[in-house]
Amino acid sequence: MWNNNQLTRTLQVQYPIIQAGMAGSTTPSLVATVSEKGGLGTIGAGYFSIEKLESEIQTVKSLTKQPFGVNLFVPKENTGVNPDQIEHMNAWLKPYRRAFHLEEPVVNIEESQKFKDAVNKVIEYKVPVCSFTFGIPDHQIIEKLKENNVILIGTATTVEEAIENEKAGMDIVIAQGSEAGGHRGSFLRLGDSEEPMIGTMSLVPQVVDHVSIPVVAAGGIMDERGLLASIMLGAQGAQMGTAFLTSNESGANDLLKEAILNSKETDTIVTNVFSGKNARGINNQFVKEMSQYQGEIPEYPIQNQLTNQIRKTAVQQGESELTHIWSGQSPRLAKKQKAEELMDRIINQINLIAKNLK
Amino acid sequence: MWNNNQLTRTLQVQYPIIQAGMAGSTTPSLVATVSEKGGLGTIGAGYFSIEKLESEIQTVKSLTKQPFGVNLFVPKENTGVNPDQIEHMNAWLKPYRRAFHLEEPVVNIEESQKFKDAVNKVIEYKVPVCSFTFGIPDHQIIEKLKENNVILIGTATTVEEAIENEKAGMDIVIAQGSEAGGHRGSFLRLGDSEEPMIGTMSLVPQVVDHVSIPVVAAGGIMDERGLLASIMLGAQGAQMGTAFLTSNESGANDLLKEAILNSKETDTIVTNVFSGKNARGINNQFVKEMSQYQGEIPEYPIQNQLTNQIRKTAVQQGESELTHIWSGQSPRLAKKQKAEELMDRIINQINLIAKNLK
Repeated sequence: MWNNNQLTRTLQVQYPIIQAGMAGSTTPSLVATVSEKGGLGTIGAGYFSIEKLESEIQTVKSLTKQPFGVNLFVPKENTGVNPDQIEHMNAWLKPYRRAFHLEEPVVNIEESQKFKDAVNKVIEYKVPVCSFTFGIPDHQIIEKLKENNVILIGTATTVEEAIENEKAGMDIVIAQGSEAGGHRGSFLRLGDSEEPMIGTMSLVPQVVDHVSIPVVAAGGIMDERGLLASIMLGAQGAQMGTAFLTSNESGANDLLKEAILNSKETDTIVTNVFSGKNARGINNQFVKEMSQYQGEIPEYPIQNQLTNQIRKTAVQQGESELTHIWSGQSPRLAKKQKAEELMDRIINQINLIAKNLK
Repeated sequence: MWNNNQLTRTLQVQYPIIQAGMAGSTTPSLVATVSEKGGLGTIGAGYFSIEKLESEIQTVKSLTKQPFGVNLFVPKENTGVNPDQIEHMNAWLKPYRRAFHLEEPVVNIEESQKFKDAVNKVIEYKVPVCSFTFGIPDHQIIEKLKENNVILIGTATTVEEAIENEKAGMDIVIAQGSEAGGHRGSFLRLGDSEEPMIGTMSLVPQVVDHVSIPVVAAGGIMDERGLLASIMLGAQGAQMGTAFLTSNESGANDLLKEAILNSKETDTIVTNVFSGKNARGINNQFVKEMSQYQGEIPEYPIQNQLTNQIRKTAVQQGESELTHIWSGQSPRLAKKQKAEELMDRIINQINLIAKNLK
């Protein structure tokens, strides 16, 4: 039922468990551990330079012969650069920069060449799986990846986005519910319509009813309960982020892991103040102070670049109130544990139930 | 596993399926059908006069010998009456009233006597189950109901609310996820903190880990998939509202049923403009126009009374854009069907899986 379905056959993995491509927080060790245990580890390459991507792929390959994936952010065609908006935001951020002795960064919105280069690295290193967030790459890129037998995973937050992913040729689609931590994958919002925040329990069966590719549930899933619930809803597997983020192997700073481990389900908020794109994380001082901001928040990747050094320095100085702490709505289920232990517990539990089903 | 657990034993029902107490939209026929089929039907008595409650209980009793419940709204101790606020709202609502030839209503915030009377009717008629929304009744009322062997069900939207329900002596707690249609059951919000909107996938296991009474999942559950997912998350059953709202036996006007049947998962919104309390329904003209309103929305039950006649008249005149259309986030799963068919399908599916488990 869950260890031999279209998803596991397509990915060539033993268990339908995907470790989310948490940009900035995955390590080769985390990715390899998940893959070695029979799930799909994912390099969160959203913010990587090409050199970094290349070295991470090489390291993962040296640690496991099992399939793994690379997650990439699909660049937006026309990011609006509004110099006044940037100036206004820089003025607002000045006190933070002054406190941390930081200079104003130079904004660089050119992302599409980097994206193409990353895709080429995926092909060059024969990475088995490539997943996408923030949209669907253009036709040529999809064709090229498919010609090279890379399995493609898209992300959807609505039924319509899932249908678009299937139409574009994705092999698998993640249905990202509102509970999910980190960036929202939404890409079909019209005008200033609200971010679609459909709960996983609602989203998954509605998506399943409208596409024929395998659906993977994401959002709020932390253990075997969430995985089995996802399967009951018609998904073929689950993607977990926060559950792996607090694992020993994750690249997240201990300060941030501790903040998640000490949080409640009511402590998260969806905000665009850190990166310019909506993402779910623990509410903190930076978010609250930014709620006083009168102007428009610059779009991703601009805001991401403007706040980047502030956030990095805050973490270095042990100041978790001034950085993003991405987390889904289930922080009470987060554990300080090895990724291996998390995988083992889930696998044992689902094997037990699989045995009972025979 | 799901047809003989603490929940079904406590409720003395065959299946762990609760029809939500949808105030204003249940009928004795709906309640009795669900109970006859082995679930728990619930009279949504939130807006009833005592006479209406009495006659509905009598009718349900004449239709079924199976257990059923009554759902009551717990009145708030000190509703803030601000005459300026009411005047301001009445001025805003004037064009709607003028169009429908309606007078300004007289506001009456006295709800606690009616609540006590309703509790007495529940006891007098030996209604087996009483469920509560909007909070926890005071100690004396709970004691009195328990002395009379009424099984009590509370509603929680956070872990903390679930713990309070257990402490207060509730036998069962509904964990209402953000997907749920109709009124939010939240009652422990501090100051002007945001409405807690925790998705069902996140809420249920976190609640299950913190209380020892049976937990019932609610929010986004429309069929056997949602019920089984709830069980996997550790709930002992599921409560469904929208799924029953579009059934033939529901008291909702056909206009509203059609609106739900024609909606997508992205069409709902949480708003307090209809009743003064947050509730999820289909976004429409009334909600959009009210978003221009500059003042504060009067608290429940004031706003509910101020908009009540406008909404009723709108429905009578076939104008669904000017009334509330409560719906959860899964309208694509809603069907025009008999409540009996819905129950049969769910029961057949879960029996099939139960058989495989043996």
